[in-house]
Amino acid sequence: MYLHWLKNFPVLPSDTPVDLSPSELARQELEMAFPEKDFALTLSPALGDTFVLDLLGATVAITGGETGLLYGAYTYLCHMMADEPLPNHLESSPRYPLRMIDCWDNMDGSVERGYAGRSLFFEGNLFSYDPARIRHLGRLLASVGLNVLCINNVNVHEPAQGLIAESLPALSALADLFRPFGVRLMISVDFSMPLRAGLDSADPLDPAVQAWWEAAAGRVYSEIPDLAGFLVKADSEGRLGPFTYGRSHAEGANLLARALAPYNGVLVWRCFVYNCRQDWRDSSVDRPMAAFETYQPLDGQFEKNVILQIKNGPFDFQVREPVSPLLLSLKHTSLALELQLAQEYTGQQIDLYTMVPMWQELFRDLPADRLSAIAAVSNLGRDENLFGHPLAAANLFSFGLLAWNPQVRPEMALESWIRLTYTFREVDRQILKNWMMSSRRIYEKYTAPLGLGWMITPHTHYGPNPSGYEYDLWGTYHRADRNAVGIDRTAAGTGYITQYPQELQVRYSDPSSCPDLLKLFFHRLPYDFRMEDGRTLIQRIYDDHFEGAEEAAELAKALKALPFPAPDDQEIALRADRQVSNAKEWRDVINTFFHRLSGIPDAKGRTIYP
Amino acid sequence: MYLHWLKNFPVLPSDTPVDLSPSELARQELEMAFPEKDFALTLSPALGDTFVLDLLGATVAITGGETGLLYGAYTYLCHMMADEPLPNHLESSPRYPLRMIDCWDNMDGSVERGYAGRSLFFEGNLFSYDPARIRHLGRLLASVGLNVLCINNVNVHEPAQGLIAESLPALSALADLFRPFGVRLMISVDFSMPLRAGLDSADPLDPAVQAWWEAAAGRVYSEIPDLAGFLVKADSEGRLGPFTYGRSHAEGANLLARALAPYNGVLVWRCFVYNCRQDWRDSSVDRPMAAFETYQPLDGQFEKNVILQIKNGPFDFQVREPVSPLLLSLKHTSLALELQLAQEYTGQQIDLYTMVPMWQELFRDLPADRLSAIAAVSNLGRDENLFGHPLAAANLFSFGLLAWNPQVRPEMALESWIRLTYTFREVDRQILKNWMMSSRRIYEKYTAPLGLGWMITPHTHYGPNPSGYEYDLWGTYHRADRNAVGIDRTAAGTGYITQYPQELQVRYSDPSSCPDLLKLFFHRLPYDFRMEDGRTLIQRIYDDHFEGAEEAAELAKALKALPFPAPDDQEIALRADRQVSNAKEWRDVINTFFHRLSGIPDAKGRTIYP
Repeated sequence: MYLHWLKNFPVLPSDTPVDLSPSELARQELEMAFPEKDFALTLSPALGDTFVLDLLGATVAITGGETGLLYGAYTYLCHMMADEPLPNHLESSPRYPLRMIDCWDNMDGSVERGYAGRSLFFEGNLFSYDPARIRHLGRLLASVGLNVLCINNVNVHEPAQGLIAESLPALSALADLFRPFGVRLMISVDFSMPLRAGLDSADPLDPAVQAWWEAAAGRVYSEIPDLAGFLVKADSEGRLGPFTYGRSHAEGANLLARALAPYNGVLVWRCFVYNCRQDWRDSSVDRPMAAFETYQPLDGQFEKNVILQIKNGPFDFQVREPVSPLLLSLKHTSLALELQLAQEYTGQQIDLYTMVPMWQELFRDLPADRLSAIAAVSNLGRDENLFGHPLAAANLFSFGLLAWNPQVRPEMALESWIRLTYTFREVDRQILKNWMMSSRRIYEKYTAPLGLGWMITPHTHYGPNPSGYEYDLWGTYHRADRNAVGIDRTAAGTGYITQYPQELQVRYSDPSSCPDLLKLFFHRLPYDFRMEDGRTLIQRIYDDHFEGAEEAAELAKALKALPFPAPDDQEIALRADRQVSNAKEWRDVINTFFHRLSGIPDAKGRTIYP
Repeated sequence: MYLHWLKNFPVLPSDTPVDLSPSELARQELEMAFPEKDFALTLSPALGDTFVLDLLGATVAITGGETGLLYGAYTYLCHMMADEPLPNHLESSPRYPLRMIDCWDNMDGSVERGYAGRSLFFEGNLFSYDPARIRHLGRLLASVGLNVLCINNVNVHEPAQGLIAESLPALSALADLFRPFGVRLMISVDFSMPLRAGLDSADPLDPAVQAWWEAAAGRVYSEIPDLAGFLVKADSEGRLGPFTYGRSHAEGANLLARALAPYNGVLVWRCFVYNCRQDWRDSSVDRPMAAFETYQPLDGQFEKNVILQIKNGPFDFQVREPVSPLLLSLKHTSLALELQLAQEYTGQQIDLYTMVPMWQELFRDLPADRLSAIAAVSNLGRDENLFGHPLAAANLFSFGLLAWNPQVRPEMALESWIRLTYTFREVDRQILKNWMMSSRRIYEKYTAPLGLGWMITPHTHYGPNPSGYEYDLWGTYHRADRNAVGIDRTAAGTGYITQYPQELQVRYSDPSSCPDLLKLFFHRLPYDFRMEDGRTLIQRIYDDHFEGAEEAAELAKALKALPFPAPDDQEIALRADRQVSNAKEWRDVINTFFHRLSGIPDAKGRTIYP
């Protein structure tokens, strides 16, 4: 079995009891790893996730809450196993109390946008899992401080609606397996559940509906008293929500939040609301504006235990988007940032795409204290190695570090992950780390240019299709013609830019000062527009695409030369070759697309197919 | 139950015995319909499908072979029920001995490119049908002279491979139901069958493979002695074939033909062979040339009982293609023309698309005597009305008439079909007939322009996507850029045109004399190219699309005003509305696509969205 970054850890005993507490597990982990050492663990429940770690000669002293002790133990063990120095005194608290992984697993065993095989939890509309793998997953999550796992797809397909009804006992048994690791479950619920239960409405202001949710919450918490809460996608991409009853999303979220409050449950409400039946002809609608328009007016109207979960960008996990203006504007509402580990638009765990540098950029514009929680869509699946691409494990690892401390340095996170995962010489470690650090920019170069996004094959979201979504319902248009490309989102255009604080408005408004890599997100520009370094826009597009494909080839060569152990070597080589093909295809399709439109040849005379 | 064009016929008794001969059925049909009349039927087996019909005062005298008597009876009955005059003396023989419907039904119950519901024959990997419906289908087919039904998809997915093995008894029971109607079954077989049976090869020159097919044919014919034969798709779109073993398609086809010969079975071999893994960058390959290149050199090498089945055009059932040059060039090989009733690219039995005018055009370039057989891909399914769109039934009806006599006049075929199907006043009949006659041209106007084809949504093949297949593997490129569109297929271009006889080369070579409606099939033309009437190419594209959408709206209005009985009225109105939406979408997407490229405004100032 793959142990991932825990590979130097002792194997977890298969008889780990389900009622072991996290602090007891902390002791077990430490003593199992270093039976000769002296560990002094002091439980101080009020400390919660916090721990204080002191190296006192031969004694390792850790003080912390139930989970604090466990995180302290893993911090110590990871440093030891990675051969990284620890300070003699370390106090550590997570930046966010909720550090969540959202699984998009369906009970039929499929995983929406999953690239690592089928569900770890479900098959054939039943729970179906290997308890040892679940414990391993719990240990992986806890080792990087993650503490909530939302178990099922936000698109709640039958019979997953039954997770808060007839399937509760089975869910509770799964929760038991995660509990020693301090990982609490969360459930995606369907706003229309009362209809399923026979009520004639799901209206949040209907007392019968309110009573139904109260009873449902009571049932759920009697089975799983430490459930983290519910996650909801409503009025989005075809799912029913408060709008059906003429109610606001505050009214909808509060309905569920009030039912959960007696049990200290949180209600996480996704703000992924937009018109997914847009008419491409209608240029008065600009999809990135939708979430702000829906939620900004509701600021302050939510119950205390509501958390609005907002994607990092205003679209949907594209390679490069500016920060969502909604994340910057809500002042009286608890917010969770939603990231996506699953590489839906970012190479599908075939192309190498390491995310932590991207997250770091995000936090330059997003003050860490605006958030109450952080979540990421899972990249896990039933593949032997859990992640499909062995190197995709680094995204889960570094997400844990980021959720603990958004100021994490990407290089350090990757350094630690490599040290823990592979027994490499220093030179190989640096080579791998550098390629991982570059991987997002490489992928960006050969795909949709300069913040444009979406030039991807519809449905599958892998490979190029410059106009695949251009005449479709999804609001994701480039409107490229023979003269220009992009949508003007300034105040003179759709006005999207006015949703930002003044500083960002200033940064992005002028096409000359707007960073090149976001120019086509904010502006409609002619092909001969001069970029920061004087190149024309069209030449920049060509250059990026030739460079990106070339760098993907170098990346593949480098990865194949590194001493990965079996079977990672094969898995990585296979994917590296596919990435090289994918990059070439992107390069040629995008270059040809723009060349056919613009008629402008490549200044360097490289091959652009007619 | 829908009786379609047999609606004035008496209901077929549910106890029709399976061993009733076609001539006995002929008598039963006549006496059931007109118990008071005097019928003199004379069986003359050597006449086969031929019949002679004489109206001798009160007596109707028919002489014919087994099936000839049946076709004579249906001819008489259809004329009576349609209230159409019959001459006093009529001798009639079908132009082609094999008049075939090819079903693309899979045993899992799905129908490849089916638009009328699931399979009439299969469900859940088993035979599953209503015997009364099967008899009704047999009667429908016989009533228009069709005599072969290939029961399963040419892409033979498991367990349909078993149709010539373990499923034979079930297939034989189905054959029994069709036999009284003179309809013989045919089976699509998989060239790789010997591998399934445990042989280590399917090489046509391997004696063990030959012996296996001989034994298989023996088994099949011992169960179904009148089976028409086998249909094969090999070396096409991923299916194994002779190329795997370095053998020619003559060697492959002859292998099976020799096994069938002792039983008078025919081997129908589809010529749908092309490179479906083409690199879009490679302009040296031109897909329409592929079939000719593969089969022309093999002319004369096929066994007598081989029939090569060739699609009407060199691509794949697009709205307008020139005749396949292969149909015109093979001199020493039996040929079947393959048409497609299933409206894969032609509106999917949502948009009205009546085919017989299109077939008539084809036979202007295709001498009828070049063919030995004629086949059409089925448009049938399990929908209550068998066809999805009630008016799509006219395509099966008129295909039967065409297969009997390719000189059939489209107006007359439609007139008869309407008379038999609906009790309309003369004025309504003419309205409907005229719209049906115009329907193909209307659809053509609002879809891909002027012979270009393929600007359709990938996979589903409904709705516009101008570049959906442009960077794909299928060889179907328009290569539109800011100056021009199309592929030069003249001698100076890909050379495709040289596959034609001299007369057609002359007709198509010069872009000025090449008919407008095929201009973009044969030529690459600038947007300001002058068409026959002096308009520019781009203006012609805009005009056609505005007109097409307008005409679709008029068509819908007209259909909704006609007095169709329930439930046809609802079915037709529903589809008419969808056609109007579809036509608008096509109009706007195609016009915008070309406007973005060309930058040329519409001369009439109509709305083209930016």
